[in-house]
Amino acid sequence: MPNQILGGAGLRGQSAGTTALCTVGKSGTGLTYRGYDITDLAHHAEFEEVAHLLLVGHLPNQTEFNAYKTRLIGLRGLPDALKQTLELIPADAHPMDVMRTGCSVLGNLEQETDFTQQQAATERMLALFPAIICYWYRFSHDGVRIDTFDQSEDSIGGYFLKLLTDKAPSELHKKVMHCSLILYAEHEFNASTFTARVCASTLSDIHSCITAAIGSLRGPLHGGANEAAMEMIQDWKTPEEAEVNILKMLENKDKIMGFGHAIYRESDPRNALIKEWSKKLSEAVGDTQLYVVSERVEAVMKREKDLFCNADFFHASAYHFMDIPTKLFTPIFVMSRLTGWAAHVFEQRANNRIIRPSADYEGPEHQEWLPISQRA
Amino acid sequence: MPNQILGGAGLRGQSAGTTALCTVGKSGTGLTYRGYDITDLAHHAEFEEVAHLLLVGHLPNQTEFNAYKTRLIGLRGLPDALKQTLELIPADAHPMDVMRTGCSVLGNLEQETDFTQQQAATERMLALFPAIICYWYRFSHDGVRIDTFDQSEDSIGGYFLKLLTDKAPSELHKKVMHCSLILYAEHEFNASTFTARVCASTLSDIHSCITAAIGSLRGPLHGGANEAAMEMIQDWKTPEEAEVNILKMLENKDKIMGFGHAIYRESDPRNALIKEWSKKLSEAVGDTQLYVVSERVEAVMKREKDLFCNADFFHASAYHFMDIPTKLFTPIFVMSRLTGWAAHVFEQRANNRIIRPSADYEGPEHQEWLPISQRA
Repeated sequence: MPNQILGGAGLRGQSAGTTALCTVGKSGTGLTYRGYDITDLAHHAEFEEVAHLLLVGHLPNQTEFNAYKTRLIGLRGLPDALKQTLELIPADAHPMDVMRTGCSVLGNLEQETDFTQQQAATERMLALFPAIICYWYRFSHDGVRIDTFDQSEDSIGGYFLKLLTDKAPSELHKKVMHCSLILYAEHEFNASTFTARVCASTLSDIHSCITAAIGSLRGPLHGGANEAAMEMIQDWKTPEEAEVNILKMLENKDKIMGFGHAIYRESDPRNALIKEWSKKLSEAVGDTQLYVVSERVEAVMKREKDLFCNADFFHASAYHFMDIPTKLFTPIFVMSRLTGWAAHVFEQRANNRIIRPSADYEGPEHQEWLPISQRA
Repeated sequence: MPNQILGGAGLRGQSAGTTALCTVGKSGTGLTYRGYDITDLAHHAEFEEVAHLLLVGHLPNQTEFNAYKTRLIGLRGLPDALKQTLELIPADAHPMDVMRTGCSVLGNLEQETDFTQQQAATERMLALFPAIICYWYRFSHDGVRIDTFDQSEDSIGGYFLKLLTDKAPSELHKKVMHCSLILYAEHEFNASTFTARVCASTLSDIHSCITAAIGSLRGPLHGGANEAAMEMIQDWKTPEEAEVNILKMLENKDKIMGFGHAIYRESDPRNALIKEWSKKLSEAVGDTQLYVVSERVEAVMKREKDLFCNADFFHASAYHFMDIPTKLFTPIFVMSRLTGWAAHVFEQRANNRIIRPSADYEGPEHQEWLPISQRA
């Protein structure tokens, strides 16, 4: 019964629908967004161009791009009720729970009542997600109520760094953020995107779909990998120490985060792109430890297990070099993947049938009802 | 390419995993929970017995049952931060957005940090979901801050009616709530449950999974059907008027909510069970309109389209006879289906592989990068 085998294996290799957004492991360097190779996009584009590509359907010309950025900048003011909610969330909450809740609350305050509002609702989320996480983080950790309606940075990545650190980010940091947000923007039917599509298939509102996707991305098998990689490598002081520890972990069959992929078999095209930036950042900050440790981990995993770094591994050091707290790594992923999630929701809505698979039953046969007094 | 056909059709008929919880359309009257026929459960059990069956794995004996109910009653106090959040949500919010947000906020305040906490976290949600919706509803609509730590009713259904109306519910109403909550508790890989399982497959926390499922249930193709049925039938004063209108709607090819099912082909076993209670309630309140209108709609749909009522159709009149506002119908579904969702999350976790299907690409072939100045 092939269905059982497929089903039991997390639908791996089983098509669950069609998409015009993305190919994974098929052409070019292995990842395309609407036909554009990820390497071209990561080298040349700003994140907002890629957001426009995914959400509107094409790369913007200069007039469209200016209008798009201006619109996004104008949407940065957090509603008061959302600020008050964020202030009620304790400092030890999981930042992904904060993102999930912020998105859900926004859906109460600015409900999408009609699918014609989907583009505007998505732009609002694009503008507000950095504000949601930074407002909570700065209030709960530093006791500061930041003004999120900050227009000093015109990019989402720059805006995030500005809110987080209260300093104008460097050109280098802004470029890294563009690259990082582009690399994480879209990845076909990964678990969080598929979650958004299942939710969308009931014709629910877009905030429900994105809230659901955030919940899935939170899982350590999905979005949590760059944080886990950082936690693993941060205490190793030399490449030699890293090698000893990795070998020990392999011997213990510990899970080593940031390596391998459900779809890619030989390499993840996003790795070379973020690794390049991690190296530049390492040089810029005068790091002599984290980058060489990361490179050694990569080499040992290749030599011992023939496993390659995925998008997450060098993101850990790159983010760390920009002074981003480790627990905010996955919320950055949310700011980026929001574009892919929403584009998939649009696509699902445009050609919808409710996603309702079957299951193979492996439970008890018919059970006779027994009144409670007769139960053992 | 059979994959394309299956995928494009919402995975219908395609197995996406195994379950020991439920069969739909296979044996007995067509719906079983862990081997027990839905008709036996609906006739004889209290909802908390069924919750125990689904979540713990067996029908409780008297000692277990008393302890389970006592535990649930003791968990009814809403955390202050959750109350304050609910007070920030306006009266015109969608009640399912309130449920989704309430669950998400709870995950911030009482984080599941380890899967050994899954049973306790679920019991807390079982106890609190009626409190979440009623606290918001009574505050935003009546300006009243209710005391949710009310122990006067020992069942979840009775507790909900007590909080909502501020009156001790009748024995009849409590029995109807038991039946209703039992009928909605579990239904295999429906869209919201499948959402919860996809989320669980990333090893995310249980509040993320349940929050995601609530978002899916919100969709009009899923949980919203009993509300839509109520809105349709509430203005028809006689069976004749109902018949004229239904025939007109059929002629216009309007969607008529509360009929047919993705899996059942000839009847929905839950219909006869809730219909019986709707009739009794109709007699108890001296109704001469809504029940006969509902019966006529059922007869016309059978005669004209050979379509049968699903679980939702007579739920509309049943809830209405108990003075439950129409917009709170789907949140009741949440209070019930929480049991099925959580049981599926436990099951997914016990034998997990991340749910990551593939997609059929139908987008553009390779696109050459063009600098923004050269774009049309």
